[in-house]
Amino acid sequence: MPFVTVKLLEGRTEEQKRALVEKVTAAVSETANAPKENIFVMIEEMPKNHLAVGGVLKSDQ
Amino acid sequence: MPFVTVKLLEGRTEEQKRALVEKVTAAVSETANAPKENIFVMIEEMPKNHLAVGGVLKSDQ
Amino acid sequence: MPFVTVKLLEGRTEEQKRALVEKVTAAVSETANAPKENIFVMIEEMPKNHLAVGGVLKSDQ
Amino acid sequence: MPFVTVKLLEGRTEEQKRALVEKVTAAVSETANAPKENIFVMIEEMPKNHLAVGGVLKSDQ
Amino acid sequence: MPFVTVKLLEGRTEEQKRALVEKVTAAVSETANAPKENIFVMIEEMPKNHLAVGGVLKSDQ
Amino acid sequence: MPFVTVKLLEGRTEEQKRALVEKVTAAVSETANAPKENIFVMIEEMPKNHLAVGGVLKSDQ
Repeated sequence: MPFVTVKLLEGRTEEQKRALVEKVTAAVSETANAPKENIFVMIEEMPKNHLAVGGVLKSDQ
Repeated sequence: MPFVTVKLLEGRTEEQKRALVEKVTAAVSETANAPKENIFVMIEEMPKNHLAVGGVLKSDQ
Repeated sequence: MPFVTVKLLEGRTEEQKRALVEKVTAAVSETANAPKENIFVMIEEMPKNHLAVGGVLKSDQ
Repeated sequence: MPFVTVKLLEGRTEEQKRALVEKVTAAVSETANAPKENIFVMIEEMPKNHLAVGGVLKSDQ
Repeated sequence: MPFVTVKLLEGRTEEQKRALVEKVTAAVSETANAPKENIFVMIEEMPKNHLAVGGVLKSDQ
Repeated sequence: MPFVTVKLLEGRTEEQKRALVEKVTAAVSETANAPKENIFVMIEEMPKNHLAVGGVLKSDQ
């Protein structure tokens, strides 16, 4: 019963999100030996002013 | 000092959220033996195109 | 399809954990109008030297 | 490669967020002995009706 | 700069974990259009007495 | 009422953890304008075989 969370910067299209959850689910199913219907994937989008690397917001880089 | 996070699909009313945090807090307080004022509950809502089961977004099911 | 995470200091008994997940699930089911079999509860225990309040570890208080 | 998440009530200005990630990154770098460029800070804002203390939503207090 | 967390029941082998992070990284890179070196995958294992479905711990099912 | 989570590779000493939560709390208090006693910091340690960068576990790099 794997639970997967993918946090990434906002801006992906619906088509990209659709492909993302499909491919990630397949990858987890295959390698962790779990049936696909038991795998949950959650997408969390971050705005650029809510992620910092090296102490600097992405919106300032 | 329990911290509770409830992730669920968006669409609940204010009245439902109010009842949710009240009842969940009572349940944790009673079973984990913690005073209510030390219990924090956070609600996180997911849009239907950000949760997938079996590799398919909820917005596509 | 609510996902609930309960983070708390380690030290609860199996009986307390069993009651915790049962009561929390009932509380979410009743208030968020979700069938119990769709509700997932995860417990995460913290050692006392991994939680700080006011800048001081619980193990130092 | 520390990953820091700061969850707080919404309402901080851009200037506050900018200072927050800068100072938190410096604090982690200095104490955990990690180079700043390897430190990631994520801000997550909560609306007042999504955080409860003692079973009562912040929007009701 | 996607951050992926995979929570699953404990018990996978090192070989399974190695394959899991490799395949998940490839899936995210391909679909979210992110270079592999910017993708972080974290595994979090849960003991069976820390996950409940339908109000019942996995260790009791 | 900020909640801060710091995920990092295991291996820091108690003294480093003590300094980490003290300095991070001060940084958040100063920049987010929150009293120290309302700030919670949680440390989460990852073993090297549970974090991957670029698809490769830290334990394999």
